[in-house]
Amino acid sequence: MKPIAEVAAGLHIDAEELELYGKYKAKISDEYLEKIKVNPDGKLILVTAINPTPAGEGKTTTSVGLGQAFGKLGEKAIIALREPSLGPCFGVKGGAAGGGYAQVVPMEDLNLHFTGDFHAITSANNLLAAMLDNHIQQGNELGIDTRQVVWKRCLDMNDRVLRNIVVGLGNKADGTVREDHFVITVASEIMAVLCLASDMEDLKARLGRMVVAYNFSGEPVTAGALQATGAMAALLKDALKPNLIQTLEHTPALIHGGPFANIAHGCNSVKATRAALKMADYVITEAGFGADLGAEKFFDIKCRMAGLKPDAVVLVATVRALKYNGGVAKVNLSGENLAALEKGIVNLEKHIENLQKYGVPVVVTLNSFITDTQAETSYVKRFCEERNCEFAISEVWEKGGEGGIALAKKVIETLCTKESHFKVLYEDELPLAGKIEAVAKEIYGAKDVSYSPAALKQLEKLEQLGFGMLPVCMAKTQYSLSDDPVLLGRPEGFTLNVREAYVSAGAGFVVVLTGAVMTMPGLPASPAACRIDVTEDGMITGLF
Amino acid sequence: MKPIAEVAAGLHIDAEELELYGKYKAKISDEYLEKIKVNPDGKLILVTAINPTPAGEGKTTTSVGLGQAFGKLGEKAIIALREPSLGPCFGVKGGAAGGGYAQVVPMEDLNLHFTGDFHAITSANNLLAAMLDNHIQQGNELGIDTRQVVWKRCLDMNDRVLRNIVVGLGNKADGTVREDHFVITVASEIMAVLCLASDMEDLKARLGRMVVAYNFSGEPVTAGALQATGAMAALLKDALKPNLIQTLEHTPALIHGGPFANIAHGCNSVKATRAALKMADYVITEAGFGADLGAEKFFDIKCRMAGLKPDAVVLVATVRALKYNGGVAKVNLSGENLAALEKGIVNLEKHIENLQKYGVPVVVTLNSFITDTQAETSYVKRFCEERNCEFAISEVWEKGGEGGIALAKKVIETLCTKESHFKVLYEDELPLAGKIEAVAKEIYGAKDVSYSPAALKQLEKLEQLGFGMLPVCMAKTQYSLSDDPVLLGRPEGFTLNVREAYVSAGAGFVVVLTGAVMTMPGLPASPAACRIDVTEDGMITGLF
Repeated sequence: MKPIAEVAAGLHIDAEELELYGKYKAKISDEYLEKIKVNPDGKLILVTAINPTPAGEGKTTTSVGLGQAFGKLGEKAIIALREPSLGPCFGVKGGAAGGGYAQVVPMEDLNLHFTGDFHAITSANNLLAAMLDNHIQQGNELGIDTRQVVWKRCLDMNDRVLRNIVVGLGNKADGTVREDHFVITVASEIMAVLCLASDMEDLKARLGRMVVAYNFSGEPVTAGALQATGAMAALLKDALKPNLIQTLEHTPALIHGGPFANIAHGCNSVKATRAALKMADYVITEAGFGADLGAEKFFDIKCRMAGLKPDAVVLVATVRALKYNGGVAKVNLSGENLAALEKGIVNLEKHIENLQKYGVPVVVTLNSFITDTQAETSYVKRFCEERNCEFAISEVWEKGGEGGIALAKKVIETLCTKESHFKVLYEDELPLAGKIEAVAKEIYGAKDVSYSPAALKQLEKLEQLGFGMLPVCMAKTQYSLSDDPVLLGRPEGFTLNVREAYVSAGAGFVVVLTGAVMTMPGLPASPAACRIDVTEDGMITGLF
Repeated sequence: MKPIAEVAAGLHIDAEELELYGKYKAKISDEYLEKIKVNPDGKLILVTAINPTPAGEGKTTTSVGLGQAFGKLGEKAIIALREPSLGPCFGVKGGAAGGGYAQVVPMEDLNLHFTGDFHAITSANNLLAAMLDNHIQQGNELGIDTRQVVWKRCLDMNDRVLRNIVVGLGNKADGTVREDHFVITVASEIMAVLCLASDMEDLKARLGRMVVAYNFSGEPVTAGALQATGAMAALLKDALKPNLIQTLEHTPALIHGGPFANIAHGCNSVKATRAALKMADYVITEAGFGADLGAEKFFDIKCRMAGLKPDAVVLVATVRALKYNGGVAKVNLSGENLAALEKGIVNLEKHIENLQKYGVPVVVTLNSFITDTQAETSYVKRFCEERNCEFAISEVWEKGGEGGIALAKKVIETLCTKESHFKVLYEDELPLAGKIEAVAKEIYGAKDVSYSPAALKQLEKLEQLGFGMLPVCMAKTQYSLSDDPVLLGRPEGFTLNVREAYVSAGAGFVVVLTGAVMTMPGLPASPAACRIDVTEDGMITGLF
């Protein structure tokens, strides 16, 4: 690793414009962001993937490797990614920083406390909760109906027993008894708010709009009405500043924010993306899960709100994952199997079609595995080219930036030869049901949408309350294009079942749930935490 | 403010040995701490106070001002203080950083997230809780009795509804239902452990010894048995490093750790104090609440465990607080009132006697107020000198270091002329009841100690479990020398009522409760949070 001040100097960031967090992490000051506002925008490249499978796709690895490859070519590139959540590191999952020779560093810091952004969000979230219950305790002037509190407490920890709790037990001085819930910090609306806010003013406006409960007349009660906005903003002041770290090859990486990709939009912060566009000629960013969830939200929520215009999409697949989509069990993915590949590639096909609906040129990349055969990769290449997509193999896990040069060249070629005509999928004016239908049919490939009675009522109420003009944020299984996780490939003729809807008024979208979404994970029988340690000389072991 | 790197350079800390957190905060690396181990120790000066009153004493202001005064005299001094807790800043209390011209800065940072130490403790505390409930969920091999879980979750927030909760509601996958409790982070045993740990090895040993529950046979279950030690240590790796900031006059200040002063020992970390002793000729440190709680624990817990030998004690009082102790209401404290002063000074007298029992020379200082009269201060001066105490007036609130020169000179004179013969109050070998009696009678001035039946049983069990050799950590009201908060002055002939006892085996003391101790504060009717805001240019307002 180079000292981060050195990486920053390469971006013309003065020492004065950098807030160091140790030697290898820094926040970028508002002064610098103000200074670069006059710069022209670089090219915005989204990295997304087919539906995730147990075979693994390597989206972050590809993003990081692509950034490194641009560096090898002498191009000025920045990577903009989400911050990983601390809690899951102690469960089954290892850290999230890319892989092999395509990683962002320092990994331990990134996966643990990093620069404290998530802790700040946890504090702000729980301050709001405490102020809400305190308001009830002190006389409940706003008439909050304790049966209709929608704000939840949060912790950045996998802790299943906090999913459903009862608070306020004890005596009069200990509050009012009610049912409550904890979510993991990345599921807090404040995470989405922070990631969509343009600046402090916008952050405060969004925080103030957040709906925390309904009163006895059924009207929404906001964080603003609880006078919690300013104090939350004070807690989030530093968290709003993008973080700068580097890849193994010293490519600068802005790592900032990390909302869930189901009940929220799953992208790094607008501030980081906008800054990156002013700082480099190529910005590589990423969206959560597969393209049906992640890219759709990147386009229809983040780009819509922030006025971003993506120039190209890199769609990541692997031969193994495509064969898995073709019905091959995980243990049998190593042998050549063109029939399965042919059967499973329809998943990739649907994602290509979807991305093309947004008017953005697509480059498909295969994150190569040692077991891929020439026949298999050739088949995928031909398949993509027949669909007006560029294609390149990526070997960044094994070779770092060097292994991404073919892909980087294809991306540059695409940017030079194919113009982006980016458009969102639906207009703001479309009613919520129309928006849901647009995503369900055009992106997921559903035949129909069915609504639970509760969802119908909720959508009607949200329209009445004036939230009908917001985009929808679909919470769906990431494993299938449909809402049924076992339907691989390209499901057709299915009905999407809408179970529930609620507004994230601060983030500015209506969350639409299609099935149970886990917002507080649990620990497994043998948690990773049992194997993590610190050596005598202060090295963390077992985190990966 | 000077850049903290400049302050550090004055202490011969190289840039490489400093981990910056922005421009004005830094952590001191282990390499530096290793390097200075060969240095001789400076003089250790404890600042403590009479029992706190609503009139205010200004203990931290005095500590900071005294450090600044040493600087004015050209002496090399360092201040070692506790980190304040975030939660209470949003309640009634303003920030804790000293006052007037005797403050440590940056105040906003110090009072909010600072360098993330408390967030790390919150994470480690709650990881342990999640691992405990997960152990029960996954088969409960250790036979944890869910009715005897003693580990509590924590948040750094004033949130009364979390005092008594029920967790694990829902379905089978959502855990086992049991009663649970949240405490504020400063009340977590991990806070005390971090503050008493010598190094990473000692930290891990202490974390592993923490008792989290009892099994169905009534035997203690430790964090070590849950295999949580290493992961907690990983979360606390950076939090274990002392933080360096500065006073308004650029005196270096090590601010590190902040355990409760009732259920814990209420002092900054051993690591910070030891480092400070190697870095300067004079180290000014502080203990929580009045001398009966704070100084007693500083001596009998911290100094005992860390082998520290204090050289002098500065005992802070104010004329107003002494008159309050003499029965004058807060609103009537401004006029000269020698009769009330004479009546109330017995509180100061008892603290002087107590401190002298530890063999350490005492300097009494009056933190001056504009309403103090010459006759009043002269009376206090004479009173102290008759009791073999030095005396000096402090005007550091109004004048900064300049206002502390008289006090600093008295302290230096004392250090030169009076040798410290520090000894702890009781030996390790004394049974727990004997230790309780020693503190109750010799320090508090009680006639007797009475025990609840539960406390008797608990003490007996703790002796059986081998915890009898630990020091006791008395949890008592801070407002009186007795366990009754309304008994001001110097109560005599009272019985101290011991209600409960439990072990903090990682910290290494037995907590003895005498009355209800609030370990999770609530917010008031009009919380400070409602008045905190961030201006457009990023300044926090309303925090003080």
